[in-house]
Amino acid sequence: MNPFARVTILGPGLIGASLGMAIRQNQLAREVVGVGRRIASVQLARQLGAIDRFTLDPAEGVREADLVVLATGVATALRLGLEIMPHLTTGCLLTDVSSAKTFLVRGLAPAVRPDVGYLSSHPMAGSEQKGPAAARADLFQNALCILTPTPASRPGDLTRLRALWKAVGCRTTELDDRAHDHFLAWVSHLPHLAATALVEVASPEALPYSAAGFRDATRLASGDPEIWSEICSSNRAEVAAALRRYARELESMASALAAGDDSAVFQKLNAAKRKRDDYYGERPQP
Amino acid sequence: MNPFARVTILGPGLIGASLGMAIRQNQLAREVVGVGRRIASVQLARQLGAIDRFTLDPAEGVREADLVVLATGVATALRLGLEIMPHLTTGCLLTDVSSAKTFLVRGLAPAVRPDVGYLSSHPMAGSEQKGPAAARADLFQNALCILTPTPASRPGDLTRLRALWKAVGCRTTELDDRAHDHFLAWVSHLPHLAATALVEVASPEALPYSAAGFRDATRLASGDPEIWSEICSSNRAEVAAALRRYARELESMASALAAGDDSAVFQKLNAAKRKRDDYYGERPQP
Repeated sequence: MNPFARVTILGPGLIGASLGMAIRQNQLAREVVGVGRRIASVQLARQLGAIDRFTLDPAEGVREADLVVLATGVATALRLGLEIMPHLTTGCLLTDVSSAKTFLVRGLAPAVRPDVGYLSSHPMAGSEQKGPAAARADLFQNALCILTPTPASRPGDLTRLRALWKAVGCRTTELDDRAHDHFLAWVSHLPHLAATALVEVASPEALPYSAAGFRDATRLASGDPEIWSEICSSNRAEVAAALRRYARELESMASALAAGDDSAVFQKLNAAKRKRDDYYGERPQP
Repeated sequence: MNPFARVTILGPGLIGASLGMAIRQNQLAREVVGVGRRIASVQLARQLGAIDRFTLDPAEGVREADLVVLATGVATALRLGLEIMPHLTTGCLLTDVSSAKTFLVRGLAPAVRPDVGYLSSHPMAGSEQKGPAAARADLFQNALCILTPTPASRPGDLTRLRALWKAVGCRTTELDDRAHDHFLAWVSHLPHLAATALVEVASPEALPYSAAGFRDATRLASGDPEIWSEICSSNRAEVAAALRRYARELESMASALAAGDDSAVFQKLNAAKRKRDDYYGERPQP
């Protein structure tokens, strides 16, 4: 791909610093600038090779950048995006890495200057870890990056941003903001809260009797509470609807069990196993 | 430990065949006999080194065995336990590997002959895989095995069975049947149904947008539907209660979100993260 001259990453945490490392190792930009809130964090990002230099001042950080990446939580991304808008260089491409889109895109796109472009990204990589210390240049290998054009996207923005995410290892696809938030509610936001609730309701006395299944089923609950609180709030209606649909399904399981309708429980277990195995291609052994 | 002369494993699947392999490799018995329903499965178990010989006849299989392990699903374990009772050798120790205890122990213990002993085991190892092909001699390394004495346990049974499970790599602890089923409902049976319901409610169109979080959170849903249907039925009241408590928590999350009470959502996320991180010792990095 045609390299960027200067990429500025606001919030070089797990995702932002991993992107910086991947961009630098693949020479996808001549310079990567990091903007953080805390000096210790951006210093670490530089030591780890995620950025070439840093500043704590967003306006200074985005100067003459031709790609600006908002790599913070979604609420901060909106605030920062509005804050840096007057300071962006003409022609700049603005993106973010947020897990919820409608709130951010509808808040930010109308404020985007006519001489810059904004196209939203969601690289589906990461873990329950956070911060630049957990960053890896290969974090995006084989991860799906969902690209969401906005009313402030220009012709060519999609091609250029897609090339960047592919160059750092992602598969890419496109969804509009509402479709993104609808689908992600089911496969990301709901599972996060489901894991959280599993941990909440388990009595501390029961935990010593847990095994690998519980550990895996609840891994998402160790994610960052601030980040995830913002994501859920930013996709409020879809997440609330998914939670209620899920709670109804669990109630229906409880009713079937309590009524002794064991074949209903079996049918649910069987249908879910087939659906999951079909998707992941793990057919039962012959 | 003092080795057994003959161990008979009824149902040499993932758990049973792994136990057979571990017993044989560690010379914990002079002979391991496998009893299965299908010739192909027990033949495979023998080829893989899980058993020395096999039969399809339970009565013949348990002859002169001083340890008999019911390694089937819980409903089959009760039926088989009753079926083999007249054929057990005087002095024999009977155990099982079931994930639900009250139903099995209360059904089987009153039928146990006075000249044999019955003490229940729950080695918390395994995966969503099944069958002898997935068996491994090291399956039990560091796994917790919960031992449940029954009214049909004799003095010395606990010591002898504990030594066996330790010799194959388990940590061990003891719980009575009701405490076992109460705790396991929260950390095993509920998480299994929670994963199942997550898969059920996700639309097929949403699955391509799932990532590692969804895969891990739903892994349990690929478990064997027959085995898990039996487990849930065998612990009906506890599992139904856990499902309802869990559904209420999810409803409360939905209500908080819908009402815009983002601090309540944050508090839940934060409390669950702390509880989980405290348990697993994964403190956030400084």
